[in-house]
Amino acid sequence: MVDERARLEVRTLGESRIDSPLAALLRTGRTTQHYVDESDRVLLDDTVSLVAARGVPVDELPGFEPGGPRRKIFFDPSKTRVGIVTCGGLCPGLNDVIRALVLELTNHYGVRRIFGFRNGYQGMTARYGRSVVDLDADVVAGINEYGGTILGTSRGNQDPDEIVDCLEQLSVNVLFVIGGDGSMRGALKIAEVVAERGRRIAVVGVPKTIDNDIPYIERSFGFQTAFAKATEAIRAAHVEATAFPNGIGLVQLMGRHSGFIACYAALANNDADYVLIPEVPFSLDGPGGFLAHLRARVVDRGHAMIVVAEGAGQELFDAASSLDASGNVRLQDFGRYLRHRIAEDFAAAGVEANLKYIDPSYTIRSVPANPYDSVYCIRLAHAAVHAAMAGRTEMVVGRWRGRFVHVPISLAISSRNLVDPDGDLWLSVLEATGQPPVFA
Amino acid sequence: MVDERARLEVRTLGESRIDSPLAALLRTGRTTQHYVDESDRVLLDDTVSLVAARGVPVDELPGFEPGGPRRKIFFDPSKTRVGIVTCGGLCPGLNDVIRALVLELTNHYGVRRIFGFRNGYQGMTARYGRSVVDLDADVVAGINEYGGTILGTSRGNQDPDEIVDCLEQLSVNVLFVIGGDGSMRGALKIAEVVAERGRRIAVVGVPKTIDNDIPYIERSFGFQTAFAKATEAIRAAHVEATAFPNGIGLVQLMGRHSGFIACYAALANNDADYVLIPEVPFSLDGPGGFLAHLRARVVDRGHAMIVVAEGAGQELFDAASSLDASGNVRLQDFGRYLRHRIAEDFAAAGVEANLKYIDPSYTIRSVPANPYDSVYCIRLAHAAVHAAMAGRTEMVVGRWRGRFVHVPISLAISSRNLVDPDGDLWLSVLEATGQPPVFA
Amino acid sequence: MVDERARLEVRTLGESRIDSPLAALLRTGRTTQHYVDESDRVLLDDTVSLVAARGVPVDELPGFEPGGPRRKIFFDPSKTRVGIVTCGGLCPGLNDVIRALVLELTNHYGVRRIFGFRNGYQGMTARYGRSVVDLDADVVAGINEYGGTILGTSRGNQDPDEIVDCLEQLSVNVLFVIGGDGSMRGALKIAEVVAERGRRIAVVGVPKTIDNDIPYIERSFGFQTAFAKATEAIRAAHVEATAFPNGIGLVQLMGRHSGFIACYAALANNDADYVLIPEVPFSLDGPGGFLAHLRARVVDRGHAMIVVAEGAGQELFDAASSLDASGNVRLQDFGRYLRHRIAEDFAAAGVEANLKYIDPSYTIRSVPANPYDSVYCIRLAHAAVHAAMAGRTEMVVGRWRGRFVHVPISLAISSRNLVDPDGDLWLSVLEATGQPPVFA
Amino acid sequence: MVDERARLEVRTLGESRIDSPLAALLRTGRTTQHYVDESDRVLLDDTVSLVAARGVPVDELPGFEPGGPRRKIFFDPSKTRVGIVTCGGLCPGLNDVIRALVLELTNHYGVRRIFGFRNGYQGMTARYGRSVVDLDADVVAGINEYGGTILGTSRGNQDPDEIVDCLEQLSVNVLFVIGGDGSMRGALKIAEVVAERGRRIAVVGVPKTIDNDIPYIERSFGFQTAFAKATEAIRAAHVEATAFPNGIGLVQLMGRHSGFIACYAALANNDADYVLIPEVPFSLDGPGGFLAHLRARVVDRGHAMIVVAEGAGQELFDAASSLDASGNVRLQDFGRYLRHRIAEDFAAAGVEANLKYIDPSYTIRSVPANPYDSVYCIRLAHAAVHAAMAGRTEMVVGRWRGRFVHVPISLAISSRNLVDPDGDLWLSVLEATGQPPVFA
Repeated sequence: MVDERARLEVRTLGESRIDSPLAALLRTGRTTQHYVDESDRVLLDDTVSLVAARGVPVDELPGFEPGGPRRKIFFDPSKTRVGIVTCGGLCPGLNDVIRALVLELTNHYGVRRIFGFRNGYQGMTARYGRSVVDLDADVVAGINEYGGTILGTSRGNQDPDEIVDCLEQLSVNVLFVIGGDGSMRGALKIAEVVAERGRRIAVVGVPKTIDNDIPYIERSFGFQTAFAKATEAIRAAHVEATAFPNGIGLVQLMGRHSGFIACYAALANNDADYVLIPEVPFSLDGPGGFLAHLRARVVDRGHAMIVVAEGAGQELFDAASSLDASGNVRLQDFGRYLRHRIAEDFAAAGVEANLKYIDPSYTIRSVPANPYDSVYCIRLAHAAVHAAMAGRTEMVVGRWRGRFVHVPISLAISSRNLVDPDGDLWLSVLEATGQPPVFA
Repeated sequence: MVDERARLEVRTLGESRIDSPLAALLRTGRTTQHYVDESDRVLLDDTVSLVAARGVPVDELPGFEPGGPRRKIFFDPSKTRVGIVTCGGLCPGLNDVIRALVLELTNHYGVRRIFGFRNGYQGMTARYGRSVVDLDADVVAGINEYGGTILGTSRGNQDPDEIVDCLEQLSVNVLFVIGGDGSMRGALKIAEVVAERGRRIAVVGVPKTIDNDIPYIERSFGFQTAFAKATEAIRAAHVEATAFPNGIGLVQLMGRHSGFIACYAALANNDADYVLIPEVPFSLDGPGGFLAHLRARVVDRGHAMIVVAEGAGQELFDAASSLDASGNVRLQDFGRYLRHRIAEDFAAAGVEANLKYIDPSYTIRSVPANPYDSVYCIRLAHAAVHAAMAGRTEMVVGRWRGRFVHVPISLAISSRNLVDPDGDLWLSVLEATGQPPVFA
Repeated sequence: MVDERARLEVRTLGESRIDSPLAALLRTGRTTQHYVDESDRVLLDDTVSLVAARGVPVDELPGFEPGGPRRKIFFDPSKTRVGIVTCGGLCPGLNDVIRALVLELTNHYGVRRIFGFRNGYQGMTARYGRSVVDLDADVVAGINEYGGTILGTSRGNQDPDEIVDCLEQLSVNVLFVIGGDGSMRGALKIAEVVAERGRRIAVVGVPKTIDNDIPYIERSFGFQTAFAKATEAIRAAHVEATAFPNGIGLVQLMGRHSGFIACYAALANNDADYVLIPEVPFSLDGPGGFLAHLRARVVDRGHAMIVVAEGAGQELFDAASSLDASGNVRLQDFGRYLRHRIAEDFAAAGVEANLKYIDPSYTIRSVPANPYDSVYCIRLAHAAVHAAMAGRTEMVVGRWRGRFVHVPISLAISSRNLVDPDGDLWLSVLEATGQPPVFA
Repeated sequence: MVDERARLEVRTLGESRIDSPLAALLRTGRTTQHYVDESDRVLLDDTVSLVAARGVPVDELPGFEPGGPRRKIFFDPSKTRVGIVTCGGLCPGLNDVIRALVLELTNHYGVRRIFGFRNGYQGMTARYGRSVVDLDADVVAGINEYGGTILGTSRGNQDPDEIVDCLEQLSVNVLFVIGGDGSMRGALKIAEVVAERGRRIAVVGVPKTIDNDIPYIERSFGFQTAFAKATEAIRAAHVEATAFPNGIGLVQLMGRHSGFIACYAALANNDADYVLIPEVPFSLDGPGGFLAHLRARVVDRGHAMIVVAEGAGQELFDAASSLDASGNVRLQDFGRYLRHRIAEDFAAAGVEANLKYIDPSYTIRSVPANPYDSVYCIRLAHAAVHAAMAGRTEMVVGRWRGRFVHVPISLAISSRNLVDPDGDLWLSVLEATGQPPVFA
């Protein structure tokens, strides 16, 4: 049990001794409860049975450090220099996070120098020669109304030593990394180099995952915007499928490891007859397989609508790829593979099929955040700034049971958030689609 | 402590002895964990300090009964007759809830007879002569794409005895009430009459509050849709305010008791310079009052944008009304009152003002649910059906720290969900608007 | 006939002798037909009968000068200084027009100095002390994605002599006025003062009228965006009206003199049962009057939806105002008056009514242009620039039977574009609503 | 000249002798000018020079028969049976047209029997065994809010003899065909068989072409909705292109023969740097070719955005296909071909490229009509009903210079509406993109 409590603890660069400039804002005459009680913890467990199963006294229950403003902070704002970098694929809300970081640092903590690194970690690596952007309130005004990221992005990590060289050269004390699990692994390495060199540079992450597959962040920013946008593709494919004889709509959505977008989008507009996700294995072939079921349905009802997460059926897909010696370049994703298999199957059975395939990936990733996600990004960014100014490092901002919390990077990258095949979300999907629980 | 645990317990009509028809869907060969463990509880408290403060053993911590499907149910679906009624003002998602109730009851539990009562409790009261609608999958197909409620609604409660007469006459075993706190008070009285008469009729509520002011339901259905739509009014007023000399935008949003919509909408598009909500008192007059601050800002910056919740400043407002002997009919709401006061104040100071006032109420209440709320309505409705079929009564479906739970009606109407003036939401609003924490 | 041809002719400041810089763009090797043949005219009449009725030879038929680029231009771009001003109420597309004027002048004609005057004609009148904005490609980047006008606006004209003083002081050669008929009267006076002083300053208007009531411009910019947005208010009111017992939705839309927005919006979503516009008189009272018809419908059908243009029924309304000695301050517009009259009428008849009134004015005026209007604004602005650079003055850009044309300001303000009560638009409205052709 | 006038004349089944039931609606006491003067014509030519060039007297100028209601009609509504069929690919507005046809026929002409044929001409051909739908006001209520067509569709024509057999069997007097140029060729053949058999069956088309490439219909229904939706794909690709190093956005839009959608969409959001359409030939290779220009731009600016119509560069494309003996199956469209060529070109030059390709086809075709298109569809359908009831046949409804007109099918399929490479639309595209007029 001690181990679990330890795994949830976040590293701190040192003692917080400086009065927080937010005091002025919070000194309302009524209360000072805006401030977080640093010794408290947000419970990891959510039911009596889970708590009881731990067999420890109540005050030893494991929990996360709560997010929020501290009475005392670690960094002197007037001498603090901050860096911000966005990494990996696009996700709605990146600009909202950048903007809220900058405004909070500037307006409320009084930080005067904020650097934006261009094109992800490339912008922190000398040989790419990317210029650095000075970020202030004017530069970030209105950027939240645009998708993408004003800083640009790139895929992949870079040498952490070169990155820390860059931070030292610019005298950066706080680095905010907005990125996915790969980028967080990179951030952890950066923090490790920082520690080796004995520097006091906080590395704080804002987890970005359009797939909602990072743990301890109930719903990742941009996720609601993404699945809402995805419903449009399902609607489009459904309209096509029902218009033509034996119409089949096939929409592939994001989700390499987890099918949240597919599940939520399918539930939201309820046009889907089948949802296939990585968490629930299935067979394509055989009398109980997906293809036979689909064909029977199309013959019976005249149309069908299928939603797949891109990571679904990888086991089948890999097998098929290995069988297909020459043409496997084409089988880059499950959606295309399934399209091919459906066409083959219907042709073999002599049944007409009008299949329309939509992969809306970029049109989802690039939209601006919806109002919910905008608010969420602001609040995530505020929590990240409060944490960093208080000297927390090697952590990401999380959200646990409705509370902003601090999560060690090591914990955040140690597992994935997955759709529970035995939970109520998947049950709702089964109920909404009417598909059988198993294709086998 | 025993008391608190008791307050959280939900009434049950009797023992559940019938095998749930969902077993077929859930018997996946892998697991049966879709089923809820009925003896477990979702923790009421969320931090170690709160739990510790209770001073009770771990297994006596108070918590809510979790929602979800039960292995055994109370009502025999083939003999169950269900009634559905929607009450009070419109809210995005009403049709989603109706539809999901009907589909879940029909497709998964096999219930064959579902009555829709028209125009709220009027439809259950003989003298109004409203016809009853037979609800089935065909009737509810696609209704979620429309705002409003296909059943119609009305305000106010009706005689609970007449309503129970109606239920008995139609042999209704389960009544779903979708309505606000007033309607839930009505539902409680209905359940009491049912109990007095010794009938086995389950009364289960789905709490509807566009203001998000019902407790134990983290975010009420339609709330996200509502504040997203509200941002459009703020944007419109802001565009007008910045276009004309000394332009002032004033938008009044829903929120009689709590300012959630005003706070979220203001955060989401960030055009607001002032947010006034019922939870945070303020003065209009005097050197530190709102009007002086506003005037100084307009003179300095050329424009200003104000968002008010309709219930803000009631204390000032009532006082003013009583002073104004003749004209108080016009002062129906705070927005109009404030408009009047601003005009007076600027006129008295000889400062030009171009004030544009928008009260978008109906255009927000009447829109269809957005994809997030659609999914949420489906899942709320599923939880309500599972609860009712398992014989729960005098309860509403709640959501507590990410879990669907059962909440006694008596508890749900005993308090309100309010914006915490010392919590991180209001802090974010203060940070985003830059307004002073106190007008006094 | 000669008179009519003369009325259609546009004034020119002098002979065009300078080679157009667009030549480079247009010298495609294939053709030079991008250039307009200046002596040609776009026919005023559209049917054989109208043409025949003129009784003149074919080559004497009246027509408008076509818009478009000229081979030779009047102003030397390198020495040309341009002013832009936006006047009157907001309308979708103002920023699109500003942006397209600036880009066309800069990128294609090579004009180096463009002034934006703030807050309408106030910005050209010394005593208001408004600063002048330098407009270039950077300033206008992305402004089309926002409603309103980056230059600000104001209502009313200012002293034309002071305005021409301002133009001379800044050495402005070309003034673009984006405004309605009132502002065009102001522009005409400016042009007259310019002529009196013997200056060579072109005054070219881009007609702005959200009501679509300016003649010779088939559809004014922003009109499509406006009526599309207006359908949302009708939908909202309709949802409310059908949800409550005896629900009545009443939406007042823009249209002081002409009911185009009301007609198009009502046709587009088809929820309206009644459309009342200024062009078609009607009675409220009496057995054949509107109120009796409405009441009969509500009693019969349970609800009704009414769309009114703000200028409808002015005759009744004025009469009523004069009768109402004390309370006439409240009767500022027809919508509120009608709401009052309906409430009275139902109350007098003892019939319950749940009336929901929506006046969405600002939320319509302030939205960004939709894609159609964006394109249209660009093309209008291009035509305006071509005309001005070719030395045309005292004109507005028009669109006549699918062609951009030059229209003398005097002609553009001499009449209004009205809904023809005997034309196919109103017929379609009568068919769509099912309302009787006459309330009398 | 006589020939041209003859080509514009529409066939009539016989003399109109029956009083139009619309008389009641139109008898306003004021006027009866709603009725069309049947002998008048809407001028074909639009400029004085074109008219003069004809060298004929004014009353012999060629023109189209105007659309609209007639005082006398040919078919007795009480005995008229109508068929409606939708053919070919989806287009926004199909349901609007179906609905408006049904409501106009039912409510205003009093037609009692309307058949909907399923899945295009397949539904009129016995061997497909498609059922026939009875269409009335209830069936079409609200269908305009959905994309697609409630009747379904299919591609290709069917045997006209079988189709006329079907019409005779059901005693259909009027057939409305909503389809593209291919389907209109089919409709013409149906009308010819009808004529051969001496039947009095009117065949009236409502031209459907999302590409806007049918002549004499200024803007085809659904076109505005389509290009507005297309701007979203361009925006998405642009956001991606500007986020990644050397990002290239490539969007392929509809337009086999004409580039209207590409031009309007590119103008509307102004993110495009290149627009390639079928009407303007270009070279890919060589120092003045597109690829070299693109590469130079990407190296210089870091990103580029390309919009292509699917029919662009067919000459290059065909040549390439013929060269590529084995793999030409993949080169189905220009967009994919261009993607391949860009990748090759950048690779050969050793320049990194992050290309994102979007082909939003189905997501555009399947959306509901926007408000403008909804109104337009209603008015087109009304004109089609008026024409058919007056006995017109072998015609489509057109729109010429702002007037609804009757166009013989033979004329409508004899040419295409194309973007004029020397007209002001293409000029505006060149101005907006800044691309060179020629790639050679």
